[in-house]
Amino acid sequence: MRQFVCLGHELPTDADFSLDDLPGAGRLDALCRSITAALLVSHDIREDVRVHVVCRDELAITFDGSELRRLNPDERSTAALVRTALDAREEAIGAMPAEPSPGISLYRRGIEATLDAVAGEGPLLTLHEDGDPLAETEPPADPVFVLSDHRDFTEREGELLAERADRRLRIGPTRVHADQAITVAHNWLDTDGYTAY
Amino acid sequence: MRQFVCLGHELPTDADFSLDDLPGAGRLDALCRSITAALLVSHDIREDVRVHVVCRDELAITFDGSELRRLNPDERSTAALVRTALDAREEAIGAMPAEPSPGISLYRRGIEATLDAVAGEGPLLTLHEDGDPLAETEPPADPVFVLSDHRDFTEREGELLAERADRRLRIGPTRVHADQAITVAHNWLDTDGYTAY
Repeated sequence: MRQFVCLGHELPTDADFSLDDLPGAGRLDALCRSITAALLVSHDIREDVRVHVVCRDELAITFDGSELRRLNPDERSTAALVRTALDAREEAIGAMPAEPSPGISLYRRGIEATLDAVAGEGPLLTLHEDGDPLAETEPPADPVFVLSDHRDFTEREGELLAERADRRLRIGPTRVHADQAITVAHNWLDTDGYTAY
Repeated sequence: MRQFVCLGHELPTDADFSLDDLPGAGRLDALCRSITAALLVSHDIREDVRVHVVCRDELAITFDGSELRRLNPDERSTAALVRTALDAREEAIGAMPAEPSPGISLYRRGIEATLDAVAGEGPLLTLHEDGDPLAETEPPADPVFVLSDHRDFTEREGELLAERADRRLRIGPTRVHADQAITVAHNWLDTDGYTAY
């Protein structure tokens, strides 16, 4: 299992946004690219992947590759899935999620509770310019990556991650988008640390 | 300079399509992701990159990172740039391109003429499951990658590339989308073959 926790600092927390302006909806376009980079390959879905999208430290939407039925690679249809999930938020009560469609669950929980939920499922990995180069690191089993959006981690997120992260990794000298970092991480894992092609 | 030649077998060749249905416009969504994967990093543009999009072996749109002024990471605004380029097609006459906006040129040329145009600018590289693993290959100067869309290369394209390609490379055991392959190729080049982080 590979998991990705994507923190969206400006994402919508309700369904009141237009599919015609995803950048204006808290950069939902970028988030959608992270979801599809994590879950899709050519003509197929990665069944061993779960993505947890945290919206403004308030709600978390989980996409489970083993159960997802409909996920297309384009941003607009992915954003429509996010909107459907947010539209079901009243059905998420306490620790019980709303389950608006197969493989998609919406929880009333923020960053800390989302990290609690994945704790113990695998090593928590963050990407950082002072981290260990991917090529010099042996890929662990069941990694859980935590990524920020176009904004840096907040001070509180930084503290939480400093406390909990098992390892900091560096993917290269170039600062890339979250979805690009996910693609690079997958390639590192797919090739077993650049050894199996 | 890094160049990417993206072959789109079903892309529109005129501006008569809706930004609300990019998958329905010959999978223009996928093409837009390839353009932005090639040209954008976090909060910046890769100035040393050129992308050549070949639409149905009929038209070619070139995006030059050193001159582009407006390119956002979302699919819809990128598709709008493509549409503006296609809308200027009447201004492309013979070998002279239309230049509808800074850094974007539309040529009346297909695959062979596009390959002619980049010939000699650097080694022509294709991605193939029988290719050499990236990690065992030294990154060349000025690479020109040729990628297909969601469809395989046609027989004629395969013959052309077999004749002209300098090297076939393999990026991993998993078959990924074109934009993901571009991201992996950039990471390989950025890290100088997984040695510089």
